[in-house]
Order: sequence, then structure tokens, then C-alpha cells
Amino acid sequence: MKREIGIGLLGFGVVGSQVARVLVDKAKTLAGQVGCPLVLRKIKTKRTDIARPKAKGISAQLFTTDTEEFFNTPGIDIIIEVIGGETPAHDYMTRALAAGKHVVTANKEVIAKHGVELHALARKQNVGLRYEGSVGGGIPLIAPFKYDLVANELKGIYAIINGTTNYILTRMDKEGLDFAVALKSAQELGYAEANPANDIEGIDAKYKLAILASLGFQTQVRPDDIHAEGISRIGSRDFRYAHELGFTIKLLAIAKQSNNSVEVRVHPVLVPLDSFLAKVDGVYNAILVEGDLVGKVLFFGEGAGALPTSSAVIADVVSTAQDINLGISDKAKPKFDSGKKVKPMADLETRFYLRINVTDHPGVLAQISRVFGDNGISIASVIQKETDIVAQVAEVVITTHTVKEKAMQQALADLAKLPVVKEVNNFIRVEDV
Amino acid sequence: MKREIGIGLLGFGVVGSQVARVLVDKAKTLAGQVGCPLVLRKIKTKRTDIARPKAKGISAQLFTTDTEEFFNTPGIDIIIEVIGGETPAHDYMTRALAAGKHVVTANKEVIAKHGVELHALARKQNVGLRYEGSVGGGIPLIAPFKYDLVANELKGIYAIINGTTNYILTRMDKEGLDFAVALKSAQELGYAEANPANDIEGIDAKYKLAILASLGFQTQVRPDDIHAEGISRIGSRDFRYAHELGFTIKLLAIAKQSNNSVEVRVHPVLVPLDSFLAKVDGVYNAILVEGDLVGKVLFFGEGAGALPTSSAVIADVVSTAQDINLGISDKAKPKFDSGKKVKPMADLETRFYLRINVTDHPGVLAQISRVFGDNGISIASVIQKETDIVAQVAEVVITTHTVKEKAMQQALADLAKLPVVKEVNNFIRVEDV
Repeated sequence: MKREIGIGLLGFGVVGSQVARVLVDKAKTLAGQVGCPLVLRKIKTKRTDIARPKAKGISAQLFTTDTEEFFNTPGIDIIIEVIGGETPAHDYMTRALAAGKHVVTANKEVIAKHGVELHALARKQNVGLRYEGSVGGGIPLIAPFKYDLVANELKGIYAIINGTTNYILTRMDKEGLDFAVALKSAQELGYAEANPANDIEGIDAKYKLAILASLGFQTQVRPDDIHAEGISRIGSRDFRYAHELGFTIKLLAIAKQSNNSVEVRVHPVLVPLDSFLAKVDGVYNAILVEGDLVGKVLFFGEGAGALPTSSAVIADVVSTAQDINLGISDKAKPKFDSGKKVKPMADLETRFYLRINVTDHPGVLAQISRVFGDNGISIASVIQKETDIVAQVAEVVITTHTVKEKAMQQALADLAKLPVVKEVNNFIRVEDV
Repeated sequence: MKREIGIGLLGFGVVGSQVARVLVDKAKTLAGQVGCPLVLRKIKTKRTDIARPKAKGISAQLFTTDTEEFFNTPGIDIIIEVIGGETPAHDYMTRALAAGKHVVTANKEVIAKHGVELHALARKQNVGLRYEGSVGGGIPLIAPFKYDLVANELKGIYAIINGTTNYILTRMDKEGLDFAVALKSAQELGYAEANPANDIEGIDAKYKLAILASLGFQTQVRPDDIHAEGISRIGSRDFRYAHELGFTIKLLAIAKQSNNSVEVRVHPVLVPLDSFLAKVDGVYNAILVEGDLVGKVLFFGEGAGALPTSSAVIADVVSTAQDINLGISDKAKPKFDSGKKVKPMADLETRFYLRINVTDHPGVLAQISRVFGDNGISIASVIQKETDIVAQVAEVVITTHTVKEKAMQQALADLAKLPVVKEVNNFIRVEDV
């Protein structure tokens, strides 16, 4: 048992200042859990404006803007990285692990891109590398994957792991808003950034899915391996048709494994209205995990924010500190050697929803049906509605039975060549989750 | 690192045989996680009829009906107890811990009644005591309480933790069934036992809540400390009125803490229809936990059954085995010394729903209102419906604002004395979860 465990904090933004606050305010409770005090020894921040309200009660001597001073501070056992982004966070984590420090981070991008390599370094150095805060804010997810669900062969992960897009889709769903209006509102409320691409194009969700899929399937799934489609092409009309068919639309991060392959993708999905994921509204996150023993379990909560993220970061710090006092590193050593390969998107099999603008003439449906038939695609339902009497344009909404992605892409190309088809306005995959 | 870790299994019923099956079928994966093989060395069962299908592939030599033979088997490091019930399971667990064996159990009754004492013994002997399977089947709950949520001061726990009652209430809700009909159906489907008292009177839920509240609030909450009311008095009429008011009815296990006290109770609750717990149907379990940092997190899944329970038991075994190989016991040492006392039920404050049969005369509502007023109870809504024209009986449904339990009990006694009041058919607490 050590007399004290020293903490170095990289980053003093929204999350970092909250983490520091908890370390100070809950010092006594945390010491009780660890067996000795956790002492904040140095904080690296961009500005040393320690008069800021968020630095209240934290000694001015703790702050530095100097990287060398930070890393040369004696008595640091655990380094918390909450800068975010790939650079310089990745370098700092590597340096910390190489120096034999335990690392706790909430950095989804670095873990998604470099987690396997960082785990190898942590293992070599016999130190812990924890990142509960990187996915789903304070919702316990990484720990369940590493410990609680280890007896399971995981079959699938279906996750709403981006609060911004779920907020936008919820507004579109409940209020019939168009995407642009819902996005603008989300930006005004601070739920979406000025440049929202990272969220709405599914990049943030890719990072988080890469982390969960790598842990869950014991293989390295890189963000670049993940097919991602964003939500910007979803229209309020799609919600109306979806409801008519008994569905709503969610941006899901999906990972499944079968035999020697894994499939990983982020895209809008038609989800049955009575499914639990359909009921997850606003900025909340929900992660449905299916295992061979446990069946379906779902984890739900606030997926972001300083307070929930600090809950995860501090839990990781306590766990690391308990390890230090026992003279061990993290006892669960994630493996990434299952050899499972990411399946090409073309080989995926799902159901589809399509919304097609056509000229409103007799025989149009027959021509469209023939394209599907020629590509071996079986139609499950058709809705046809006249939309513009003058222009004689109608809208056809088709759902298919399960079909290979490759066949659907061919059918979409063939449809585009039909003179009666004005435009394929949308195609959305359908999942029975 | 040991060459092998030996397992003794107490109980070979539905759960026990499934646990043995996983230990055999997943031996290679589990060995990879632990670092050495987990070897089943002895199984104590009531019958040694090893020709049973569930014993397939398990060596006949492993089975014994003899307690002494079981405990004298050499090379057992971990004892798994899945007999269930208080006796002899409690004695066996005590004996196992006293002999320096690590214990894994799914026994809610023993942990609820004797968890604090067993934890003290485990601590003294420097061995692990784990019981993830005791609450919520395979849903990770005990581990989140012990590790992932440790940075939080927990404010409240709101849990659907009895699948049988949730199944019955769901049938009543969706199909308008009476309690007796829904119970009979549950029994026919195997969801309720021939003697259903343990489930429908809330005893099972009390055990589970005692475990969660003790861990969450760091104090010993005994099942006997928990006020429990069952669901047998709920009528299909109550669901109709609840819907009219924007609610449904669930059996909730509730624990809250404030200052130096905790409040713990199991009873039917009017839950807002748009709440997440209102959407948990059938035999599923859902546990909503509110913490000062994490906000609201919800854990959902199958709350019972051999497969989900084996998921939890095996996860505990793997974690224990990893500890053994590191020469440690469980690093999280739950504490029960917060000194928080269970608040008397009379001091509780909730809102209420009441359904009262009255004679259908002018001025009745005024008399009832006076009783409430005299007891300092503020009425939130009133519905009055004529139910029997010939007998001149009407039904009045009242919801109140927040009121002390003591005042409501006094009001109920006063109402019973009013000649115009035929019967108070029901009173159900209302919670905004």
C-alpha cells in the first residue's frame, strides 16, 4: 500500500476541470476506496489563467503549460488524458506508458485508431490503460465488455452512440422537422457543433464502434474498416413512411460476428417502433449487446457531458489506483488475436427501404419490380402515392426482404437507368432489433 | 500463475447444470482469459443420476451426494453455490469461506440476509465473494455498483427486478386481464410458480433490493427493513384509470438516500407512460440508477433463467480465477459502515393514487375533500364515475400532491369512517421516474 498515489492531468477543458473538481471534492471518499489519498500533482493546460472559476480551490502551482515540466513532475503514478483529438494526445499517452505510468483516458479517437498498439505497450510496461469514458459517457460499457460479459460469445452490438444525431432524428420524428431545421436547433442548443460533420456523418460513432467491436470480437477493427453513412439525406417524408410501415429511423452503430468474420457499419436504420432502441429519445445513448448466454442486455444513459464522463474517468482512476496498491496492472488483458476479418460491405445481407420518384404512368411499378426480380430481390411491401398531379410524378416506397448489398447496389444502378425513374431519393437499411 | 484452478460446484439444478456445461464447452476460451485451465473437480447434487441429459459429457466421478466428500476434495480453489434458498446454502458458503475458498454464488436470499457477515469473513480469509448472478440474471449490476459507479453518490435506485410480476402486470396492462387470470396464465407458461407468494408479494424483490441498497449506500439494509406490498390487489380498473391519468402500473423496488438515512421499499407504483420503466414489458428486468455525476443510467435485460445467470456466474469465476493467479482477492472491498439508517415508512413522502367506492349522493366529494384537507393533503386530480345506477354507487379516483405516508394513512383511516365511503379499493404510490 502506497502512502499516496500521484495523478497528472493532461487537459483542463470541460471534462478535465470536472475531473479535477471530483478529485478535490471527493478526496475523502476516493481515499477510502483506494486505501490511500489520490493527490493531483500537475495539470497541463493551454492557458494558465488560474483565476478561471473552474480552477477554484485548485492550487496555482499545479498548473503548467510546459509539456516537459508536466512529464518531469516527480511522484506521478497515473496520467489522465482528457485533451481529446489525435494529436498531441496520442504522443502524450505513448510517452506516459513508455515512462511506466498508468493511463486513463476518455479519448475515443486515439483509442479507436491506436488502441491495439497502446494496449501492447501498456502490457509490455505492466501498467493499466483504461478508457471507460471514451464510449457512452458514464454508462458502464468498457468494463462490462472486459469483465462482466467475458463468458459470452457476443453475437451483435446495436448502438445509439451519438447523442447529437439522435437528438436531431428525435426532433424530426416527433415534430416533423426537416433535417436542416433540426440541425440548426441542435446547434443553437449546443448539442451540435458549428461544424457538425464529425457527428452527422457518423465519424464519432465509427470511433466508438471500433472500440467496442475490437474488444467484443477480440480483433483489431479500425475506424477506416467501418462503412459509415450519415443522416443528412434523411427527410421528414422518410419518417412519415417509416411510421406507416411500423418503424422509426435511428442512426445505429452495428457490429456482428459470424464464423471468421465481423461486420461493422454506421448508418441510418429503420427500427421497429416497438423495439427498445426506437424508444431512446434525445441526446441519450443506448447500447444493445447480444450474447450467446446473456441474451439481450441494454445499457442506457447520458452519452456525453462533463459530469457523466468524469464518473467514468474517476472510476478508472480508482480501479488503477487499487491495482497500484496491490502491485498489479489491469488483470483483464484484452486480446485482439481472434483473426476475424472485417467482411466487405458488398457481402452484407439486410432488408432495405427505398423511396423512389417515378413518372405517374401505368406499368411503372411493373418495370421497377422487374429490376428487383432480375437482381434476385424479393419485395416485401409497396406504398405508392401521387405527389404532383401536374408534373405527373408519384412516389413509390418499397421495402425488400433480406438481400445482399451487392445485389441492391446493382438494382439501384439499374433503376437509375429506367426512364420512368426520376430519382432514388433514399435507401435505408432495415434491422429487426 | 497456477497450473490449474479447481472448481467445486454446489448444486446441479437448472442453473448448476448450465454452469457446468459452460465450464466444459468453453474451457479453451475461459483458460485463455484466466491464463490457466479451470477444472471442475467435484459436483454436489441431490441425485447422482448422471444418465440425465444435462450431465452429458461430464465425468460420472465428479458427482457426489456427500457433503464431506465434496468439501474434502483436494485442489478446489473456487466454490460455486447455485443451490438457492437459505439452508443449507448459507452454511455451505460459510464453510467454504472459512476453509479459505473463494465463493461465487447466485443466491439472493443468502446474500440479502447474510451478505455483510459473509463479506467480513471473506475479507478476513482474504478470498473473494462474488454474486453477480443474484440480481438481474446476466445484467451487469453488482460489478457496476462495486467498480464503475464508485465516483458517484447514488441518489436513487428504481428497479423492475421481478420478471414474474412484470409479466403479470404487462398482461393486465395490454390485454385488460384481471390479476387472477394473468397469474394463472403466467403459471401455465412457467413464469410463475405453483405457490407464487415469493414473487407476487414482493419478497424476491426485497432480497434483490437489499443487496443493491447495501452496496449502493454502504450500509446494511436487511430484507426485513424493506416495506413490501405485492401486486395482488391491483385490478384491471386501476390500469384503465392509470392510463387516463397518463400512467401505467409497475412493481418497483425503490431505494433512495438523503443525508443520513435511506428509504427502501417494494410496492406497485404509478409510473408515467413516457418513462423508460413504463416501456419495460414482460419478464424483462430494468434497473435505473441515479448518481450525482453519471445522471440516470439504466441496465436492461433478462432477469432470470439458466443461460443469463450462467453468464454472470462464469464472469465471476473468471474474475476470481484471475485474482488467484495474481495472488490477490477481490480488490473492491464493499463497505457497510456509512451509518445510514433505514427511514421509517411513516416518514416517507410520495404522491398517491386512490380508488374509492362511494354512495352516489350530492356532497360526497366535499366530505372526502374535507378529510384530505384536515390531514394537510392537497388533491391533484379527481375522476368520478357512476358504476352502479341501481345501487347508487360511484367510483372516485383521486391523485394527491406529495404527502407524508403518516398523513395518508390517517386520511385512509378517516375515510373508512365516513358513511358515504363504501370502500377504499386501492391506493398506489406515484413516482416520477
